[in-house]
Amino acid sequence: MTADTTADTLREKCGVFGIYGHPDAAKHTALGLHALQHRGQEAAGLVTYNGRQFSAHRDTGHVGDIFDKPDLMERLTGHIAVGHNRYSTSGATAMRNIQPLFAELAFGGFALSHNGNLTNFEKLRRELVQRGALFQSTTDTEVLIHLMAAAPAEVEGAVDRMTYALQHIEGAYAFVAMTDSQLIGVRDPFGVRPLVLGRVGDSYVLASETCALDIIDAEVIRDIEPGEMVVIDTEGLRSLRPFPPRNRQRFCIFEYIYFARPDSVVEGSSVYEARRRIGQELARESHSPSDVVIPVPDSGVPAAIGYADEAQIPFEFGIIRNHYVGRTFIEPTQSIRNLGVKLKHNANRAMIEGKRVVLVDDSIVRGTTSAKIVKMVRDAGAKEVHMRIAAPPTRHSCYYGIDTPNAGELLASRYTVPDMASVIGCDSLAFISFDGMYRAMGHAGRNPDQPQFCDACFTGDYPIPLVDQEEDTPDTDLFSVISEEA
Amino acid sequence: MTADTTADTLREKCGVFGIYGHPDAAKHTALGLHALQHRGQEAAGLVTYNGRQFSAHRDTGHVGDIFDKPDLMERLTGHIAVGHNRYSTSGATAMRNIQPLFAELAFGGFALSHNGNLTNFEKLRRELVQRGALFQSTTDTEVLIHLMAAAPAEVEGAVDRMTYALQHIEGAYAFVAMTDSQLIGVRDPFGVRPLVLGRVGDSYVLASETCALDIIDAEVIRDIEPGEMVVIDTEGLRSLRPFPPRNRQRFCIFEYIYFARPDSVVEGSSVYEARRRIGQELARESHSPSDVVIPVPDSGVPAAIGYADEAQIPFEFGIIRNHYVGRTFIEPTQSIRNLGVKLKHNANRAMIEGKRVVLVDDSIVRGTTSAKIVKMVRDAGAKEVHMRIAAPPTRHSCYYGIDTPNAGELLASRYTVPDMASVIGCDSLAFISFDGMYRAMGHAGRNPDQPQFCDACFTGDYPIPLVDQEEDTPDTDLFSVISEEA
Amino acid sequence: MTADTTADTLREKCGVFGIYGHPDAAKHTALGLHALQHRGQEAAGLVTYNGRQFSAHRDTGHVGDIFDKPDLMERLTGHIAVGHNRYSTSGATAMRNIQPLFAELAFGGFALSHNGNLTNFEKLRRELVQRGALFQSTTDTEVLIHLMAAAPAEVEGAVDRMTYALQHIEGAYAFVAMTDSQLIGVRDPFGVRPLVLGRVGDSYVLASETCALDIIDAEVIRDIEPGEMVVIDTEGLRSLRPFPPRNRQRFCIFEYIYFARPDSVVEGSSVYEARRRIGQELARESHSPSDVVIPVPDSGVPAAIGYADEAQIPFEFGIIRNHYVGRTFIEPTQSIRNLGVKLKHNANRAMIEGKRVVLVDDSIVRGTTSAKIVKMVRDAGAKEVHMRIAAPPTRHSCYYGIDTPNAGELLASRYTVPDMASVIGCDSLAFISFDGMYRAMGHAGRNPDQPQFCDACFTGDYPIPLVDQEEDTPDTDLFSVISEEA
Amino acid sequence: MTADTTADTLREKCGVFGIYGHPDAAKHTALGLHALQHRGQEAAGLVTYNGRQFSAHRDTGHVGDIFDKPDLMERLTGHIAVGHNRYSTSGATAMRNIQPLFAELAFGGFALSHNGNLTNFEKLRRELVQRGALFQSTTDTEVLIHLMAAAPAEVEGAVDRMTYALQHIEGAYAFVAMTDSQLIGVRDPFGVRPLVLGRVGDSYVLASETCALDIIDAEVIRDIEPGEMVVIDTEGLRSLRPFPPRNRQRFCIFEYIYFARPDSVVEGSSVYEARRRIGQELARESHSPSDVVIPVPDSGVPAAIGYADEAQIPFEFGIIRNHYVGRTFIEPTQSIRNLGVKLKHNANRAMIEGKRVVLVDDSIVRGTTSAKIVKMVRDAGAKEVHMRIAAPPTRHSCYYGIDTPNAGELLASRYTVPDMASVIGCDSLAFISFDGMYRAMGHAGRNPDQPQFCDACFTGDYPIPLVDQEEDTPDTDLFSVISEEA
Repeated sequence: MTADTTADTLREKCGVFGIYGHPDAAKHTALGLHALQHRGQEAAGLVTYNGRQFSAHRDTGHVGDIFDKPDLMERLTGHIAVGHNRYSTSGATAMRNIQPLFAELAFGGFALSHNGNLTNFEKLRRELVQRGALFQSTTDTEVLIHLMAAAPAEVEGAVDRMTYALQHIEGAYAFVAMTDSQLIGVRDPFGVRPLVLGRVGDSYVLASETCALDIIDAEVIRDIEPGEMVVIDTEGLRSLRPFPPRNRQRFCIFEYIYFARPDSVVEGSSVYEARRRIGQELARESHSPSDVVIPVPDSGVPAAIGYADEAQIPFEFGIIRNHYVGRTFIEPTQSIRNLGVKLKHNANRAMIEGKRVVLVDDSIVRGTTSAKIVKMVRDAGAKEVHMRIAAPPTRHSCYYGIDTPNAGELLASRYTVPDMASVIGCDSLAFISFDGMYRAMGHAGRNPDQPQFCDACFTGDYPIPLVDQEEDTPDTDLFSVISEEA
Repeated sequence: MTADTTADTLREKCGVFGIYGHPDAAKHTALGLHALQHRGQEAAGLVTYNGRQFSAHRDTGHVGDIFDKPDLMERLTGHIAVGHNRYSTSGATAMRNIQPLFAELAFGGFALSHNGNLTNFEKLRRELVQRGALFQSTTDTEVLIHLMAAAPAEVEGAVDRMTYALQHIEGAYAFVAMTDSQLIGVRDPFGVRPLVLGRVGDSYVLASETCALDIIDAEVIRDIEPGEMVVIDTEGLRSLRPFPPRNRQRFCIFEYIYFARPDSVVEGSSVYEARRRIGQELARESHSPSDVVIPVPDSGVPAAIGYADEAQIPFEFGIIRNHYVGRTFIEPTQSIRNLGVKLKHNANRAMIEGKRVVLVDDSIVRGTTSAKIVKMVRDAGAKEVHMRIAAPPTRHSCYYGIDTPNAGELLASRYTVPDMASVIGCDSLAFISFDGMYRAMGHAGRNPDQPQFCDACFTGDYPIPLVDQEEDTPDTDLFSVISEEA
Repeated sequence: MTADTTADTLREKCGVFGIYGHPDAAKHTALGLHALQHRGQEAAGLVTYNGRQFSAHRDTGHVGDIFDKPDLMERLTGHIAVGHNRYSTSGATAMRNIQPLFAELAFGGFALSHNGNLTNFEKLRRELVQRGALFQSTTDTEVLIHLMAAAPAEVEGAVDRMTYALQHIEGAYAFVAMTDSQLIGVRDPFGVRPLVLGRVGDSYVLASETCALDIIDAEVIRDIEPGEMVVIDTEGLRSLRPFPPRNRQRFCIFEYIYFARPDSVVEGSSVYEARRRIGQELARESHSPSDVVIPVPDSGVPAAIGYADEAQIPFEFGIIRNHYVGRTFIEPTQSIRNLGVKLKHNANRAMIEGKRVVLVDDSIVRGTTSAKIVKMVRDAGAKEVHMRIAAPPTRHSCYYGIDTPNAGELLASRYTVPDMASVIGCDSLAFISFDGMYRAMGHAGRNPDQPQFCDACFTGDYPIPLVDQEEDTPDTDLFSVISEEA
Repeated sequence: MTADTTADTLREKCGVFGIYGHPDAAKHTALGLHALQHRGQEAAGLVTYNGRQFSAHRDTGHVGDIFDKPDLMERLTGHIAVGHNRYSTSGATAMRNIQPLFAELAFGGFALSHNGNLTNFEKLRRELVQRGALFQSTTDTEVLIHLMAAAPAEVEGAVDRMTYALQHIEGAYAFVAMTDSQLIGVRDPFGVRPLVLGRVGDSYVLASETCALDIIDAEVIRDIEPGEMVVIDTEGLRSLRPFPPRNRQRFCIFEYIYFARPDSVVEGSSVYEARRRIGQELARESHSPSDVVIPVPDSGVPAAIGYADEAQIPFEFGIIRNHYVGRTFIEPTQSIRNLGVKLKHNANRAMIEGKRVVLVDDSIVRGTTSAKIVKMVRDAGAKEVHMRIAAPPTRHSCYYGIDTPNAGELLASRYTVPDMASVIGCDSLAFISFDGMYRAMGHAGRNPDQPQFCDACFTGDYPIPLVDQEEDTPDTDLFSVISEEA
């Protein structure tokens, strides 16, 4: 769960959090963001309202550093707050792109956190600039605020204006927003990105994952539903439906496979258990006689436990992870190779030497790390290395809020599975099947006509139109703001 | 000319600079801003355009520090640039309030530097927010950009949109703006704030003062005229008149008395000579038999030289200034008093002891510093101290771009001149008369019906309507942005 | 393995590293220190020699940050290097206390890294000051250099002077030192602290643990023996015996239990396997009917796997660790309790609810964390919580290089085991027995007459005299150096 | 008086300050150092003693920044303090070279500030290292402390040990030192460097110049005499004579010409008046018919006033100095030349155009700046430029504490005066004569057999042996400490 700087993984783009009616709103938000740190490590921020003024603090870095400043928490006064963790969103890393975004609108102050990606962002931005909008950031999120600001005068209040704006956007999103009197949460009609509702004392809480409720001892109430908008104010909680009813929901299955924390419960299912069951399915589908099951830590651990349980082979930590951030503080040289892997992993020779090893990982992206890890395990004396992947082959880019390489860089889009095994250097390689993955999620299999999840990164079946992709809207930054570079 | 941190002076709010058609546009702008550092020491910034992209760098601090970063000047590529020095403008000190402001408008990128103050800013801001404008900063300057963005679609291009926007604003201003193809300069119809045009090689330059032309070896062409807009592009320079003709011009006389650098030539007159002549007038008006004329350094020096010359009394540096910034790094205690004065000034006892001293200063604001300096001179053995001020009594606040205390804090608004002498502790006190001041500027005297300068801080005669003052528009910051505090 | 800031653990005080004859000596040392980061996270440094000049860089923070500076590695030129990770040693955290220490001695330059603690440091320091030594730091390590400097003139060269100095010191130590032509390693006569010898290409390497050899692809040769000094130079490696022979060796058993990395091999035994065997012994000694075995991550993991294997109960990650550093960026409030635990751990309810849980941890220090974790597990729905500790009760302070609380603060020194169970709130509590622990290490049991390890923290049997403790030498810092505070 | 970064001046190496018996010792020391900032701008520090512990703070930068940190002054508790401003001393700029140096000696704590240079430093350092001394810094100052530490055991106490150490050193020095009960001041037997004694309330003060007494309202008592040691403790002040009597004193005449502040009184004479009288002598010796006398600010001002007074020609500020630090934040280009001069100076054309100008400067070092200034004055329209220098030609390096170029880089060592005029480009050039300079100082002329001052930089007559120069002791830094670079 540490920042993965060698970049051979897919990365979540953002975690969101909001709380209403709590005297320690800022502290609880900071704790929630700390629990959601795995969803974005580049920057974080939070905005509060204290009955008179909004207070905001945003910076690059980790939550624990950003909010560890003298008097800071004391100055973030208020009983409503929203917060945000950022990975790299559609805007470059600059101070002004760090969320929550905030602005004074006709009805008063407004702050907004967003997890996801708007697929018609460039198109909307271009139109709004032509109509006189001045953009503060280069994030897709800002178009929502401009659409709200540009709503006809008769559309009054934050809720109506947000409803108005939502009609214009396409994409995958979970929004958490606040005014001086309301906390608002919205999920897109397909429910691609997660958003959960909880309660601590008399206060409602919204968060990307339940682990952010656990850290503040909040109880989980339920997931916000796809296409639902909840409005929390002095009257309590109202559920609105700003979209026409659609019967399909397509939650992002990669949240189960890799992004979400294993202790979170998403859409009613334990992430840890889902991964464990995928491991069990994998053992059934592609068992290989072996002496030990070893996870690639940390994300491969639950699947490896499931695999070992099902295959009745001992589970051991044969690869040890160094959780201190190693970065690339040293340029690799001829004598210092495979640096990215070494800074994070080391083979535990005592558990490997002379054994037939099943190596369990969550997914393969470019494959470069997998090849290095297989080599490391072989160098530690493994007799055989059988790689088992707790996801299908990743063949397509995500446009719904996950940072993925171009399809051409994905190993699975360039090679067959046997060829991938050669590239990686393992004795055998197997991925979970589509149906196996869906079985692990409690379905009979994948419904090809109406899949139960968004699995576009595996299948290329994109449920939401990719407007900017199709119109090829240019994505140019007119301004290079040197002073705001992180 | 060092930052005055004890705050018993009036302070200029900003210097502006722009250059068109020079391969080293950023470096020349940084040098110009260094020469204009006395007009604003809180922050500075510059924006360039390189034919493809705008590049911006803005930060708090002095010019020499802000631009002294590895590779920075190399990254600020381009042949057009505008720059800005900031003191404290109408917005609080925050990163987003540092100018030049910039934004993408319908016609493309636009960057803007402003010296002055808009007197209907709050009113316009309120109206614009109601119409859907999202403000990025809390500076008055941003309303001009929003007015340009909100112009009717048929008003095309930067020049026409800026002309449109200028019709809506009231105030004192010198704007320097740029697009991807133009450098634009504007002075308000009364010409309260200065703006001068120069040329270096084939490039036109705009700057608040001629000292910013001298540093880059540019020649002075002329002052931009009150109410004039100049547009510089590949066609050369055009002069436009966006306002109906008015026959009155009211240049800020305090630029001569204190703000401008003595080596600058403003509206055709040498600032040094103007101050020297005020000293001569002062000697004629209020001579007192004395042994030595001593300036309060640095701003009182030219007037003291003029006084000594006219009165035929020796001029000596009886007060030595320590130019190292002393700040208030130490809390005053019972044994450490008058700290602000001591950190900057020390009496040169050898030139004072046993003498009748004429002490020449440029102005009296709160009077606290004057009292401490008189005491310091007496402690150094002066037999008599006669204070002579090279300006009339300062009795009114400035709303045209100068940072002044409330009128109630100005010593001259609370006391008669004899009472001021008592408060300050000098043996005699005299100010230059209105007519004497105007004589020194080359006029027969002050024309009470149509004064030749803006002298509102002395007379209360405000030439431009004080809209926000009259309507009492509340000036509230809805957002406290902790991370952007300097 | 992340920095434990809530301080309810024992902490290693330092890791050391040295390399001789490698063109990339600095890079390899930095990598070795990264692998040894768990042994000290406060500061790090390294010194190189390039044939003409020594180069040094030392700073507070993590290795990955300290050496991630432009051009730094390029400036640390040379083929010999020594490095050091520091926790808190006997001197306060100040720049000048960061190792390697270095100085010019009569024979030339000398640099020194130390893991351990000298038990007669205060006594020696006092004597040396009286004899004219000027101390640069407040670390115990510096006395060795002063003893070398103060050696009689006829004792020439680094090796002889170091041998001379070693006769005067008492304590537990692993030294790695360098001159302009030699790399020197020494372990104390009891071998309390670890030091291992390796080889990469033609270069010898010394390091606290084998994991620091693995990261640079060095092969392990052997442990430096207790009381051995190795000298590496152009002649190759010489083994010296500066001490009279003693037949007892007392390696620190806590290195196996907690300090060392699980992938290290120490004194010939795999740390992971040792912990795993302790878990097995524990299951045999104190089995309790249960549904799931859950480790307190990360250090309890191998023992839990061993316990689960022996007890034939499923092993699951029932507690998820957040590896992002949480610090205490938030002050706990009435509604935010148990913050230290929550910032790092969360219960994985899906694996706990309704189950009888065996919770396996490496040790109990103050017990505060254990109590919070038991409560967290109960709140997640555990029916029963049985705590099993992979070490005997920790009842005594360490004076040999481990940062321990005063004995009075250790839970086990204040309570019986049943009372500890009450304090912690678990249904049952059991520690491994002394004999069980020694069995897991491959011995028949603990030899009470001549124990095979230093186990003073459990038994109070201190093999090396505690001189300063007995003489009650005052430990006063005469100088408070504010500018060097980290 | 601002830091001269273009380096065409000679620079003082250090200011010292000490105070005894004052409850606000640290604050008064910081103020004294601020007043002495012109004597060293690279770094500063102070040490206090509060009856129990010494507290120290040292850093690079200006006094106003170094001590402007939260709670810092409150933590520098105590009633005795010594402080130091550093330019570049004989050691490179590193944290550990910033003074005051401090150490625990046999008699207790000791802190030391030094202005000057020891001419047998390298020789002593080499000997001390051979005898077992560990040097903490690369400054010459540290040898004094080591000599004190190495004194025979029967030499007890700080005063006796310092007396012992002083017998071994050669050079020019003013030391201010403290123990836990004494403040000690020493000047070398020739009295080359200044040191003055003052009193504020019941507290004695020692400082390099009287301006440091003025800022804290202390009265001047007298100069410490050449070869005198003063010891201040609860008994009051004692004057000791650690050296055999010598009848010659050789105060540095360059203190009058350039280094000291004009408001200081040194060895009984006002610096301002001395400079003014040199200007008068200069006018008598080398008058030239002219229209205006213009100083090169700031150091040429008093001499220019004296010249104008004697020659009866108007004095005007024809060159305006920009006191904001410009540094070399911009690389000069073909179109940006003479950058160093432009960042600091601008011609005031109104006072120059069409006039015959006498330009008065304090000295000529390399001559590069002079040439640029003459060109700038000519470009501003001067008809003639006559340069007059308030010092004789500078032909020799200083080894007594002033940072000078090698003799070969000094313009006056390479050219005759007429040739210098050609190089500089002025119509005439004249220096004050030796006798004229001594007359201005109140003597009949220079006594060639026994000069009244140290004027070695003009004459090459070095009163103190240059031991290290003669023995050609190598000055090698064995250690390059990257982390301590400023």
